[in-house]
Amino acid sequence: MLERLDKTVMHSYPGMVALVTVAVEEEHNIMACGWHTYISYEPPMYGVSIGRERYSYQLLKKAGKFAINFLPFEKAEVIQKAGVTSGADTDKLSTQSFIEGEATGAPILKEAYVVYECETVDVKTYGDHDFFVAELVGFYRDEALFLSNGLPNLKQLSIPLYLGRSRYVKLDDRVGYKDFLK
Amino acid sequence: MLERLDKTVMHSYPGMVALVTVAVEEEHNIMACGWHTYISYEPPMYGVSIGRERYSYQLLKKAGKFAINFLPFEKAEVIQKAGVTSGADTDKLSTQSFIEGEATGAPILKEAYVVYECETVDVKTYGDHDFFVAELVGFYRDEALFLSNGLPNLKQLSIPLYLGRSRYVKLDDRVGYKDFLK
Repeated sequence: MLERLDKTVMHSYPGMVALVTVAVEEEHNIMACGWHTYISYEPPMYGVSIGRERYSYQLLKKAGKFAINFLPFEKAEVIQKAGVTSGADTDKLSTQSFIEGEATGAPILKEAYVVYECETVDVKTYGDHDFFVAELVGFYRDEALFLSNGLPNLKQLSIPLYLGRSRYVKLDDRVGYKDFLK
Repeated sequence: MLERLDKTVMHSYPGMVALVTVAVEEEHNIMACGWHTYISYEPPMYGVSIGRERYSYQLLKKAGKFAINFLPFEKAEVIQKAGVTSGADTDKLSTQSFIEGEATGAPILKEAYVVYECETVDVKTYGDHDFFVAELVGFYRDEALFLSNGLPNLKQLSIPLYLGRSRYVKLDDRVGYKDFLK
């Protein structure tokens, strides 16, 4: 039974973890970000909430652009490592294969199934994070992993969802579903 | 293989659909919102992106507060209906059992497994949506559906994730997973 609690509850998981990549001058980095959302259809816009202590934070501020990469479940360990290690200590991109985004120069991970290039249009400080609002200016997808109706082909693509406490669940074609489209 | 596309791709699904509820003066409403995220830990803050044509938009602006409700998979049809019908035509809350939130007066759905009460602290226009940033001021949870470590008990709770095109997938205890906690 639902009850009111006298404590902070923060649970809207499971959710996808975005891998935010950035390049500026001689530096580049990758970080895991669980707090992100679409914001607008037209123009297409996206927002990511970044802790100000994160190594990528200053790079994102300086670059004014970045990319958002989504990796398949088989690469969950890459996501986890991008979350628990810091670019201050290690070149996390050295083990990843990537190209430079055409629109932004941000690293585009070759193992991703969807990537967006983003140009920052606003940065707002809210509590202990800054919220970066960006226009989507470049789109990449592994077309073989999607159906003609735009949905992911879950027979070909398993999607990792972060559940909390370093656990990732696997969304594949064994999941049950309900359709409401007439 | 990942490739650059000359078209807009907007796919970071599957994701949870938040049911945003609001009450102001004699009116109340419920709407489905797929674009939402945590923003800050301390203080706990949350953001939701709302189309300005939505019936709830004016109510949210006027009230300055709202609630975010998450329903289990068995109630996916309630989520879908909240998304495809408008409060301009029908009292969508008339078929839902709810209480008034202590902190905000916003409707708290009794069938939810997690609910947050939210006080709006900022509203920004980005593209075709407005982004409402709120402080979380009230917390509700069905404690029987969560483990002592805070993770959902997927034996007891099936979570609906919106995949796109009116399809909801079911996350339950049959999913595979990977753990990275040492």
